[in-house]
Amino acid sequence: MLKYRKGLNDMPPYDGTDKFYNIKVNANECNMAMPPIVAERLMARLQSVPINRYPGEEYDNLVDQIARNFKLQPENVFLGNGSSELIEKIFYCFGGSKAKKIVFPDPSFSMYHIYAQAAQADAVTVPLETDFTLDIDKFVTAINDNNAALAVLCNPNNPTGGALPVSDIQYILDNIKTTTAFLLDEAYVEFYGRSAVSLLKDYPNLIICRTFSKAYGLAGARVGYMLAARPVVAMIGKSFMPYHMNSLSLATADICYQMRQEFVPHIQIMISERKRMAEQIKQLPGFAVFPSETNFLLVHVNDQPELVELFEKNDVGVRFFSPDNKRLKDYIRISMGTREENDTWFGLMKAFSEGRG
Amino acid sequence: MLKYRKGLNDMPPYDGTDKFYNIKVNANECNMAMPPIVAERLMARLQSVPINRYPGEEYDNLVDQIARNFKLQPENVFLGNGSSELIEKIFYCFGGSKAKKIVFPDPSFSMYHIYAQAAQADAVTVPLETDFTLDIDKFVTAINDNNAALAVLCNPNNPTGGALPVSDIQYILDNIKTTTAFLLDEAYVEFYGRSAVSLLKDYPNLIICRTFSKAYGLAGARVGYMLAARPVVAMIGKSFMPYHMNSLSLATADICYQMRQEFVPHIQIMISERKRMAEQIKQLPGFAVFPSETNFLLVHVNDQPELVELFEKNDVGVRFFSPDNKRLKDYIRISMGTREENDTWFGLMKAFSEGRG
Repeated sequence: MLKYRKGLNDMPPYDGTDKFYNIKVNANECNMAMPPIVAERLMARLQSVPINRYPGEEYDNLVDQIARNFKLQPENVFLGNGSSELIEKIFYCFGGSKAKKIVFPDPSFSMYHIYAQAAQADAVTVPLETDFTLDIDKFVTAINDNNAALAVLCNPNNPTGGALPVSDIQYILDNIKTTTAFLLDEAYVEFYGRSAVSLLKDYPNLIICRTFSKAYGLAGARVGYMLAARPVVAMIGKSFMPYHMNSLSLATADICYQMRQEFVPHIQIMISERKRMAEQIKQLPGFAVFPSETNFLLVHVNDQPELVELFEKNDVGVRFFSPDNKRLKDYIRISMGTREENDTWFGLMKAFSEGRG
Repeated sequence: MLKYRKGLNDMPPYDGTDKFYNIKVNANECNMAMPPIVAERLMARLQSVPINRYPGEEYDNLVDQIARNFKLQPENVFLGNGSSELIEKIFYCFGGSKAKKIVFPDPSFSMYHIYAQAAQADAVTVPLETDFTLDIDKFVTAINDNNAALAVLCNPNNPTGGALPVSDIQYILDNIKTTTAFLLDEAYVEFYGRSAVSLLKDYPNLIICRTFSKAYGLAGARVGYMLAARPVVAMIGKSFMPYHMNSLSLATADICYQMRQEFVPHIQIMISERKRMAEQIKQLPGFAVFPSETNFLLVHVNDQPELVELFEKNDVGVRFFSPDNKRLKDYIRISMGTREENDTWFGLMKAFSEGRG
């Protein structure tokens, strides 16, 4: 037997494959193609990427652009292979022993548990209320009682869809110790419109992660960014090895960010589809839908496994939760597809509801 | 102060930028553009990448293709953001405490020291002989005496250029314990032509890493691959989080690998330039050049700092080593550029040699 790192064997196997569906609404991706004007400029840009050179300028260009947009310095910005990699590394940077507590609400992004395990830290979860809202006082208490190295909040939250106002984020920051790093995962914030970026200047322990995967529809490019105070970026940067990003993805994100106005209609369509579908689902007997500020809906379903099976049979992929997941076993999460796709899965849902009635 | 992971502060700062030079021969990149027929097919391929989807098929396609080429199974192949990421993670997987020894020759790829530090392992180096060859018996002894968790060999070696025959690799494997993982970093093997891949079937502790950055000229795409026995790939895979690779780079490497015959003339040009330049440098008083099986040359220079300054003044970037580096402070490493670029830097070298004489 080889002398592997302690704990490695307990990690889940690598899982990087994703089943294809005719209608794929299981991963909160953007189901619309890139705006044609962006796609055109992107292809021209990719042609001129010096692919034979290690990345350099492409990284700096995107950092500069993001910094300018938020009126920050380049030293406040760090890029990762999706916000996933950034969050993984942030957990890593605040872990290293079971004495290091990482506190986050549950249910939230399921990977937080894995990142905490990989970081050899101790994950402490704060259960959401029955209606999937977060009691911020309970959250603050858990953070302080555990003397947390890191507190994490996904806002708006995945997979529940709910969001806290910026004033609540500020309340949390005001009531936790300044020695606790606070990671705000804003993966879905473009669908909500209320970012906490303005708090960065007053809270040197605040770290915000954002992504190009959702609102910009670039899940395949794996680009995310972290915003934080200079010393925090410098310290977390130490956990990254040179050339961790590639030029093609950097150039892609750079073009999309330059042309971000072109994505506004996309975002608006996804929001209006979310509202339309939430209204429709509400009318269906046997279904309950939770308020969402994202591009997906969390739906309570009686007989969840049967509905998932019906979707599978019709080549529709939704995110469902296993029977072991006590809080979510009766739920499915559906990302907003195109109008046509949404009408299709809703048609199945309606037929299912009627068939049961 | 935030509660950072122990040891993080001792890591070097993130360094991902690369200075631009008119003639850039400091990073062992390929200075030739991609073969036009490949570039054309690549652009068509990139247009059809489903960038809005998390990667899936693109990863599997490249894995399958690499596995087929080496007559291995897909379960024997794992992809990384450059072989850099793979090597970083392999070190990580065999580290975790100072009791874990990672043994490698010195000088070799300078990042091995950083990877060992990041892995919280203990780096044990085996000095190369005066002529920069490796005494394999000394290497074997160091591996066994230290009961190494991991032994690492870059073959051909960076930055010295020398290579061991496959029979020597086999000798090492035959004489170390089967509980020591043996990582063979074949970043430059395409310029050497003698890979140890055939040994994989007999040595379940052998791990081979290769890259698209050098012979394929894709340093900007960050794609490398690891070949190893199934259980080793599965265990190391556990240290990777889902979607660590992006679809654009995967599709790029996939096209280049499909069309790898088109890169053979490139590789041959780089080899013949290496031979031509080695011959020329040998004629220069005050210079010594080491035998190389790579796309670069290690050159001993009297008055190294003055030559580096002359290169800098003429916008030529070569790799040089700091005065703190006892073994290499009198050396520079030059990658093979185009014929014209090589003639230019050699002209400067010649003038420098004559000016001093």
